[in-house]
Amino acid sequence: MKYLIPLFLSMISITTFSQSIKVADEKALTDFHFAALTQGKSYEWLTYLSNQIGGRMSGTVSAEKAVKWAEATMKNAGFDKVWLQPVMVPHWERGTKEVAYYTLNKKKIKVPIAALGNSIATPKSGIAAQIVEVKSIAEAEKLGTALKGKIVFFNVPMKTTNLRPFTSYGETAGIRVNSANVVGKFGASAIIIRSLTTSLDDFPHTGVMSYRDIPENEKIPAAAISTNAAELLSKHLKENPQLKFYFKQSCHNFEPKQSYNVIGELTGTENPNKFIVVGGHLDSWDLGQGSHDNGAGVVQSMEAIRLFKINNIQPRNTLRVVLFMDEENSGSGSRKYADEAKVNNEIHLAGLESDSGGFTPRGFSIDSNQKYFDLIQTWKPLFEKYGIYEFFKGGSGADTRHLKTDETLLVGYKPDSQRYFDYHHAATDTFDKVNKRELELGTAAMASLLYLMDSYLD
Amino acid sequence: MKYLIPLFLSMISITTFSQSIKVADEKALTDFHFAALTQGKSYEWLTYLSNQIGGRMSGTVSAEKAVKWAEATMKNAGFDKVWLQPVMVPHWERGTKEVAYYTLNKKKIKVPIAALGNSIATPKSGIAAQIVEVKSIAEAEKLGTALKGKIVFFNVPMKTTNLRPFTSYGETAGIRVNSANVVGKFGASAIIIRSLTTSLDDFPHTGVMSYRDIPENEKIPAAAISTNAAELLSKHLKENPQLKFYFKQSCHNFEPKQSYNVIGELTGTENPNKFIVVGGHLDSWDLGQGSHDNGAGVVQSMEAIRLFKINNIQPRNTLRVVLFMDEENSGSGSRKYADEAKVNNEIHLAGLESDSGGFTPRGFSIDSNQKYFDLIQTWKPLFEKYGIYEFFKGGSGADTRHLKTDETLLVGYKPDSQRYFDYHHAATDTFDKVNKRELELGTAAMASLLYLMDSYLD
Repeated sequence: MKYLIPLFLSMISITTFSQSIKVADEKALTDFHFAALTQGKSYEWLTYLSNQIGGRMSGTVSAEKAVKWAEATMKNAGFDKVWLQPVMVPHWERGTKEVAYYTLNKKKIKVPIAALGNSIATPKSGIAAQIVEVKSIAEAEKLGTALKGKIVFFNVPMKTTNLRPFTSYGETAGIRVNSANVVGKFGASAIIIRSLTTSLDDFPHTGVMSYRDIPENEKIPAAAISTNAAELLSKHLKENPQLKFYFKQSCHNFEPKQSYNVIGELTGTENPNKFIVVGGHLDSWDLGQGSHDNGAGVVQSMEAIRLFKINNIQPRNTLRVVLFMDEENSGSGSRKYADEAKVNNEIHLAGLESDSGGFTPRGFSIDSNQKYFDLIQTWKPLFEKYGIYEFFKGGSGADTRHLKTDETLLVGYKPDSQRYFDYHHAATDTFDKVNKRELELGTAAMASLLYLMDSYLD
Repeated sequence: MKYLIPLFLSMISITTFSQSIKVADEKALTDFHFAALTQGKSYEWLTYLSNQIGGRMSGTVSAEKAVKWAEATMKNAGFDKVWLQPVMVPHWERGTKEVAYYTLNKKKIKVPIAALGNSIATPKSGIAAQIVEVKSIAEAEKLGTALKGKIVFFNVPMKTTNLRPFTSYGETAGIRVNSANVVGKFGASAIIIRSLTTSLDDFPHTGVMSYRDIPENEKIPAAAISTNAAELLSKHLKENPQLKFYFKQSCHNFEPKQSYNVIGELTGTENPNKFIVVGGHLDSWDLGQGSHDNGAGVVQSMEAIRLFKINNIQPRNTLRVVLFMDEENSGSGSRKYADEAKVNNEIHLAGLESDSGGFTPRGFSIDSNQKYFDLIQTWKPLFEKYGIYEFFKGGSGADTRHLKTDETLLVGYKPDSQRYFDYHHAATDTFDKVNKRELELGTAAMASLLYLMDSYLD
């Protein structure tokens, strides 16, 4: 009988302990969701960022406005600490709206076009040249010097059959980033690419390209045309392979500029010097308002922390919002943040990034050791009533990935992605494309995950 | 040793059988998804139905156009049988666009307003009366004869905190349907309701109301105002409780008319006289284009069957598309279909309804005996790679519910619903609100479930 009572007690105590944790966790998730849906600020903040500031490329006046606004917003929300972390960022601007057209059977056909980020301008009078359509970089390589003087048209559609459009984007984005380099060395005069979207529409979708370290004289202008225009051009090239294409763009790379990551904290009660980061990039492309990419991630990150405050939940570890500058162009903000963290020996327990749009929550993508991956799986049942079922291995995002160590739990918030590339980097990425409930439910999901990270990591 | 060999063989055979089923099922689902995303017709069909036909209330010329179009579409798609099933339907029309305003501090404030379906008109000169705001039917009942001569303003918001907006709709829709009856008997001159949507916008959302069997002299006009207008009016009533509200509507209930359910079949190879129905309602409200409600369900139902054809999958049982007329007003089409099925002793194995919009697939709502409910749970793993996790008990939909027996498996297709009520019954329910991929993935999910129903039921 000697051991019976202690054993019995210990069983009780384990059960009670795990049940009490479970009840507390469930309550926290309920509270986050209730607060997000009834007292949410994310949608109101996103209206301002979208409509009053709009597109905000690193180095531009708009980006600086966004920095000031984010700093003020976190201060007004009562964060314990808010500061700016200086970082040198590239400064590329589009200049005058681009023009493109060609003539078929004496009819002038206008083409919706946009320079790719980092591209050089055309000569002031534009470029007019014969156009050659290719379906891959390999095909262009094969054509080699036959491309001399030509405009090379990379007509590579994003695959529609991948269930996650991000997979298709990953498969195709290399065309946008690299193709100018590939054909520049053959003396091609420019490249145009089919916009990276699965939708057929009339909007060019921009995005970054890179000349890497190629010689100045091999740099050629690069632009994207809309998917509808790409379909039509391809058809017209079959009718007339001698087609001449004209376009003009006046974009320019200015001197790098000082800008800032915007950082805010809710100080941890137990481990104030251990950090859980939540964030996304503050900059955006210039064609739209950057509402899904990544205004949503910005307001969700700030709001997730605010949900702790309004529910009077004190984190054990310090929760830190980081709004990274310059994700879209060179990634300087996130490298700077990670470098400084290393210099200062800061302990980062975890990072949660939102940079996949403000759509209905579906799950989380996890980049961690197996122990943490398994730990997160134990939280799944808490999320199912909120329609969140997907906890899979994958990258956390372009900004938080620099925080990777063997012991850091990095997670990407992954909302439904079917519509994402309709708006991505295009003039269509505007506030009206964001649904209030979807944005708020995403915020609550992020706050919930932060809460569990904070409860179970140290 | 005697029993060993047969046992061994029987184990092999069971394993092989279940594995081969699993492989065949997986392949069918893959094929449906691939075909929907690469050769889909649903989006093209929905463009036509939305933009060329548009809103299509039962009894109207547009509804008859929709009938002819649906019949031709199924014939062109090569269905084995296509026919029209006559049904008498109500015929209510809105007439001239409604007008509403009130005056505060000498400023005229215009109010976006729309008559509720079935409502009577106001007098030609409109109604001007003092307005009384109430928050529930109970509150109105309590005020009783104090409402005489007044316009009663039911300002009851749809709850934002239910995770499924359909739950909130279910909680609030009674206000729209019944409130005119409740206050008509007290001599109120009219009712206006706050539109049933969780979003704050400038669009009135219509929907059916009913006078049931109240005397003619108690019938009063009923209309919905936009949520933004409701918020403002409520605020202004606090400033001036004597506020007079004016509105005018000229809607009219015409004589019932003959219309049709549109029916198409793919004949079963094994059980041609056993039916699995897939469908949704063909009619819609008149303010928008009825693209989500329920153009999506219409094109998905037809396309689900077409996906069998283009994948050369012959169903064992007969798959029957039923596009029900008049779901929105009186439900006559679905009652007619069920009545005829009973008269003809038709055996309905199952019914699948799509009437929750053309959004990203999330799951299915199941109304069946426990045996079938348990059977469907065994199919869950097949759907998870398509992001479909929710298989829960609930109604199948307003049209298929009449097919209920102890042995019929009724299922409602349930896509993501967070945006649904932004568009529901309003001018905003237009084609541009539907995403091609989301619509197509929904179609593939429906075809997949039909395939499994067809494989495992008889």
